[in-house]
Parts: sequence; C-alpha cells; structure tokens
Amino acid sequence: MKDLIEFLRIPSVSASPEHAGDVRRASEFVHDWLAAAGLEHVAIIEGRGHPLVYADWLHAPAKPTLLLYGHYDVQPPDPLEEWISPPFEPAVRDGNLYARGAADDKGQLYILMEAVRRVLRERGKLPVNVRFLIEGEEESGGDHIEEYVKARAGELSADAAVICDTAMFAPDLPTLTIGLRGIVYGEIHVEGARTDLHSGDYGGAAPNAVEAAAQIIAALKDRDGHIRIPGLYDRVRPPSDAERSTWKRLPFNAEVYRKTEIGSTALAGEPEIPLFERIWARPTLEVHGIRGGFTGEGSKTVIPARSVTKISLRLVPDQRPDEVIGELESAIAAAAPRGVKATFKLLSSAPASMVDPSNPFVRKAAQAMQKVFGNETVYVRCGGSIPIVGLFEEKLHAPSVMMGFGLPDDNIHAPNEKMSVRNVERGIESVIAYFDLASAAD
Amino acid sequence: MKDLIEFLRIPSVSASPEHAGDVRRASEFVHDWLAAAGLEHVAIIEGRGHPLVYADWLHAPAKPTLLLYGHYDVQPPDPLEEWISPPFEPAVRDGNLYARGAADDKGQLYILMEAVRRVLRERGKLPVNVRFLIEGEEESGGDHIEEYVKARAGELSADAAVICDTAMFAPDLPTLTIGLRGIVYGEIHVEGARTDLHSGDYGGAAPNAVEAAAQIIAALKDRDGHIRIPGLYDRVRPPSDAERSTWKRLPFNAEVYRKTEIGSTALAGEPEIPLFERIWARPTLEVHGIRGGFTGEGSKTVIPARSVTKISLRLVPDQRPDEVIGELESAIAAAAPRGVKATFKLLSSAPASMVDPSNPFVRKAAQAMQKVFGNETVYVRCGGSIPIVGLFEEKLHAPSVMMGFGLPDDNIHAPNEKMSVRNVERGIESVIAYFDLASAAD
Repeated sequence: MKDLIEFLRIPSVSASPEHAGDVRRASEFVHDWLAAAGLEHVAIIEGRGHPLVYADWLHAPAKPTLLLYGHYDVQPPDPLEEWISPPFEPAVRDGNLYARGAADDKGQLYILMEAVRRVLRERGKLPVNVRFLIEGEEESGGDHIEEYVKARAGELSADAAVICDTAMFAPDLPTLTIGLRGIVYGEIHVEGARTDLHSGDYGGAAPNAVEAAAQIIAALKDRDGHIRIPGLYDRVRPPSDAERSTWKRLPFNAEVYRKTEIGSTALAGEPEIPLFERIWARPTLEVHGIRGGFTGEGSKTVIPARSVTKISLRLVPDQRPDEVIGELESAIAAAAPRGVKATFKLLSSAPASMVDPSNPFVRKAAQAMQKVFGNETVYVRCGGSIPIVGLFEEKLHAPSVMMGFGLPDDNIHAPNEKMSVRNVERGIESVIAYFDLASAAD
Repeated sequence: MKDLIEFLRIPSVSASPEHAGDVRRASEFVHDWLAAAGLEHVAIIEGRGHPLVYADWLHAPAKPTLLLYGHYDVQPPDPLEEWISPPFEPAVRDGNLYARGAADDKGQLYILMEAVRRVLRERGKLPVNVRFLIEGEEESGGDHIEEYVKARAGELSADAAVICDTAMFAPDLPTLTIGLRGIVYGEIHVEGARTDLHSGDYGGAAPNAVEAAAQIIAALKDRDGHIRIPGLYDRVRPPSDAERSTWKRLPFNAEVYRKTEIGSTALAGEPEIPLFERIWARPTLEVHGIRGGFTGEGSKTVIPARSVTKISLRLVPDQRPDEVIGELESAIAAAAPRGVKATFKLLSSAPASMVDPSNPFVRKAAQAMQKVFGNETVYVRCGGSIPIVGLFEEKLHAPSVMMGFGLPDDNIHAPNEKMSVRNVERGIESVIAYFDLASAAD
C-alpha cells in the first residue's frame, strides 16, 4: 500500500488551476510507476488540458487485449474542516484508507496497476494483452481523452475496456455495472421586459421571467415526477425481466435509504415505478438552479426581465439525444407564457449506454469477482453518465467491463473519502482472476 | 433654481454607507434653508438611521394645518456610464434639469420648500399652518420616520398631509394620486434532501427544492396572471364607476406603452381586466428571484436541497394583510410537492390606502392644480406602496394629498433622471394656490 499512499499524497485537483503542477506530478507518478512495473511504450500524452498516460504490454499473441481505464485526478477536498484526517495525508482507520481520491479513483486505478505489476513480477508475463489509458481531467469535464480516442481509434484496438471507477451495491456483494444513463444538459433562457421593472408600477402588466421559468418547469414535469414532454417516453426500453428480478433481490431498505442517503420526508419520483427502475432505467428531469432577479438579503421589488434555468434530462436506452433535444425545445416553446421568449441552449449531451450481460468479457468479470468474494455477482445500472463508456463502445467497439470495488458509503466527492483496505486487495485478486479467465477460450 | 442645484450636488445616497456624510450634509442643507426661510422649531431629529428634519410655522389660528412631506435622500446613481451628464453635476438641457434626485425627490421637495419661502417673503405670513417632516431614508427602507410618527403622533396634529413624490399621468395633465396598493413581501423557504445531491445517482428519488419552488409558484398564479390563492380576491373592492370612466379617458396608447415602457412581446396580467385596473386596483403576485442550486457558468448536475424564493403580493382595498398572509401560507403548504417542506417567512406588509376624492383637502388640491395647468385634474392610483401614507392616515387621521409634478419619463431610479424646469415653477404655483384654497372655508 506504500505506493498507493504516496500516490494519494499528491493533491491532483484537476479543477483548480493552482494545482496544475500537482496534476502533472500525478501523471509523472503513474508514468514512472508503470515503466518500473515493466509496461512498454509508456508515455505522457500532451494535449489541451491535463495529460493522458499511455502504456501497454502486448506480448500475448492470439489473446484478447484489454484497455485499462482510470483517472489520476481528484475532486476538490472542500470543505476542509469536515475531514477527520487531512485529505492529502492518507490515514488508515478501522480497515479503511482515508484520503481524497482513495476510492475515486486513485485507489481503484491502483488496483488495475498493481494487478498488472504483480502478475508480471510473479510470472514474467501476462495472460492477456493490456493497454493503460489514464486521464487527468475526469473530475473537471475535460475532453482531452475524447479527442485522443477519436483521433487514435485505429491504434487503440481492444476487445474490452476495464473500468474500475464504480461501486459495489453492498459490502461483500460483487457488482458489475452494465448500464449508464445518458444526459442532455442545457439552459432555458427566458426574456421578458426590456429591463427589470418595479413590481409596484408594472405588476399586472409586465411579464416576469422567473415566474415564466417556473411555469415552464411545472409544465415539463408534474408534481409526481412524470415528465410532460410529448414523445419523451416513446423510445424508453423497459428493463428486462431478468434485471427487474435481480433488482428486487438486492439487499435494500428503502426507509434507511430515505433517511440516511436522501434525508427528506419522502422519496420523490414517479410513484408507480419501483425505485431502482426510477433512478437507473427511467428518464428524469432535474432543475439545477435558476439565475435571475433579486436573491440577496432583504426586500427588492423587482420584476425580473431575464432568467436562466440550468436543466438536465437523464436518458435511458433507446432514447436518442438529438430527438430528446428537439422534443424539449418544442415543449419549452409551448410552455412559455404570454409576453416572454423562451429558448433552450444545449451545453452537452450523451446517449445512455448498456453492456450486454451475456457478452463473454462481462460474464468472465462476474465469474472472477464471484470467485474472490464468494458471493454471486449482481448486475446493476448506474443513474449517472460516464461518457467515456459510450466512446469506447462507439469508437473502439469495445464493451466496458465496470468492475467497481468502492462501497456506497465511501464519501466520494465529499469529506472523509475512504476505500476499504480489504477491497483493494480483493480488487487486485479479482482483476488477476479476470485476466486468466479472459485469456481462456470460451 | 440656484438653491435646488446646490441641493442636487450633494450625493445623499442613503443606501450607501460611504455616503453617510453626504446624507447628513443634505439634512443640514434642508435644515439651514428652512431656518433661513423663516420656519420655526427647525430641528434635525436623530434616531436609528438617517436624521429627520422638522420645521413648522403655526401662526394661522383657526386655519388648517398641513403636514408637508418629502425626502432628501436619493437612489444610487449606477450605472454611471449611462449618464449623459454626471448625476451630481446638475445640467439643464431642453427645458429639463438632469441630476440624480431631480424628480425623486429633491426637485419635488424643493417645490414645497420654495412655495412656503415665497409666500413668507411676499406676504410675511402663510394662509395656513404648516409642518415640514422630511426624511433621509425613503430610498433605503429605513423606519426612522415610522417610529417617530408613531411616538409623536400627538404633537404632529395636521388636517392633511401633502406629498410631492409622485408623477403626473402625462405632460400638462394635473394629476392627483388617490390610491396606493399595499404589499405582503416575504420568502418561500423549501427544504428537500439533507444536502445537494448528484442528479445521476439520485434523480428519480430525491426531491428537488428549486423544482418544488417552481411547482408552488405555478400553483399560486396561473399562466394568465390569475392568483390561485383561495380567498384572496374575496375582499377586493372594484374601482368605482367614476374611477373606471376616468381611467378610460386617460390619454394612453397601449401599444406605445408595451413597446417603450415594458419592451416585451405582449403585456402580461389578467387578460379580461383593463390595464389600469390590473396595475392599480387588482392584487398581483410577483416572484423577485429564486436562490438555490447551481447558477454559475457551465454544467453542474446537482439536485438542490434548499431554495429561497422572494415573492410579494400587491394588495388593494379592502384586503387585509394578516388575512392575506394566512391565505398565502396555506396555499404554499398545499402546493408543496411530496418530499419537501415549504414555509413562508414574512419580511414586511402594509395595507393598501385610498383617499376619498370628495375630501375637501383633496378637492381643493385638484382645483389648485387645474388653475395653474389649465386642464382638469385627473384622479389616478399608483400600483406601488408608500407606507408613510397609511401611517399618516392611521396615526394622524390625516388624508394624504399626493400632488405630483414629475413626468412618466423622468427616469427615476435610472440613469439620466430629470425634472421639467417648467413643472418646478408650476408646482410651486400650484402649492401656493393650494395654501390659499385650503385656507378658505368650504
């Protein structure tokens, strides 16, 4: 663990310009480590944004090639005062390693790196071919890796991508993530009067751009979480019976989830749809904030002339982002009240992605984890989006094998991030077992 | 005009702590000016906030006493770059005096002060008794004057209050404002999850506090501007036939108003109600802004856990603020979606006020203005709130005579504020004529 602790000491916060040197130092750490482990073609790849690290070992002819993905950058550690031990001074307590990046993603990237090093040291060779492709701006939305994969798809041939950046559903329950939601993220811009006006003089005559945003939001989604955008559900593919039955058997207490994870008086969302289907397999619409008017202390009687609403839709198979954008634009225009102009400005979009659970590379990952953990591997989905997964599928035609060894309470993106020490070791053993299984003919 | 120009040079911005010395200097200017004009008991009255200036002349036994109100503070001048001549360097162009405070309210306060000085100088006495009560925090919401009037009501006896702080409906059209809307201003606080959550992980399970605010707003007011708060319209007193017929005859072009004053593609508000009734005699609800979630540049996929919505209702006769607050609280609670707690936090309230147009002090003001301007005086209302009017009514039992000499295009609270030089002189003549008419028996 000594190497991991050294890796975690580097405050490689990719979103902070003042940490640019640390981010580079982390890329060099990975580069030097992989070179020392016996990887070849080890390179720091420069581009717009933070560098990528590439390395490969391609001496297993006729065996599959695995693309091993991870990221060496971390989230900002704020609020610092809530950390029990400082975020960049790794500390072990109760079998957990506490540090920013312990689970997301240095600890899990280390699992991939250490698995390769251990096999090379012990056997002198790997049972499969591997390529590492490691990025440094996953937490800051950079697109260096996207540009690289698009430009170099021909040189990155792989049979499957292995991503260690997700979590297990519960302790001791090996988990493969086989579905991710897509996203359409943008802004609703509303324009009303020529300028903010006084509500005494003009209340009853002037349109209100914040109220108009509220009317539009209320028209797009009803009080029960049903999206009211015509056509939006048309292509939604329901989860298979197998998935539904797996999800029903997951160890889960909705009341504990409501109290400890959400902390609200009730759960939201479509009441007639089971929870896992709501968060994994149903499109959802969320407003992230509204800018406009007066929000300071005290009273100001302004009728806002402009508003900007941050909004996103999470997409599921088989929704198409371009279609959804068109439907959303039409719904916004139709919902705009008299006197305002409302338009949608797209910021980003990505389709949902699904891995076929019967794909041999996925099945073998499940077998490998089951062997190490002693429990049957469950297949779940993730409500979030990992755009790189769609890219590997589209450009490399490689299914993503998301073997995650984090735990739900790892506090990623929050103070006191941790990683189970035992899961690091079990993760390494699982990846090694996977190499052997992937190497064998079906 | 020399004195007015000197008065306008003082940047008495009451909302800016760095102008505190200037605000005091303006109070001293008024004090010294009134003392030099022959007023008595001239005093700067200290209290919480900026000082009041008091002065009187009470040597007309058996004649009415008029309380003359104005304010010597001004709005901030920002944005400075939009001023053609600097805001505190008064300049005359095309018959208008340009300066911050030219119309609101130094120029109009000067009308009252100069009318008194001119009569005292020319006749050695006034035909009525007068008390000046002038404040320095009208533009910053201070309550020094309110506390003073409440505490000293017994010493401030007056038959009517004269307020020169409103505008004429159109050039050459003498105008008396006889109605003001009241207000209930507060915040809707919404609480959802324990903290902001990631919309990928929790979209479909966690309540969204900004969306809940939008749902509540949409429930409180429909797309056509009808307020949907049960009971809210019950006490609304429709304008009299006389008022309605006056309003119909006002010189007004709705299309020009929409284009130049509002600048939107259509007017808002209850479509079946005529415009003047909407803005003067109907309750309206406006949202001033929503705080919560992410509103910066770029994309952040947060589900906001908290939101604060600034909201106000304008009230008309005979609505009662306490009743309205109760109705609003109930409507907010009823509109809150599953999983959130929504409460209303009151910041301020004031009832609407109406002056009886048949009151002799009001009628005589109309006659005085008509004599000077040569046109029949129109009675209008104002959609805004001037809390001091309700206070004079309640504590002094004095009707407010709102003789305004500003014009609709005076740019009060905006760059290039101005006052018609001719209206300053006509205002002085109107006030002098009013003193004489008020002095005569009915």
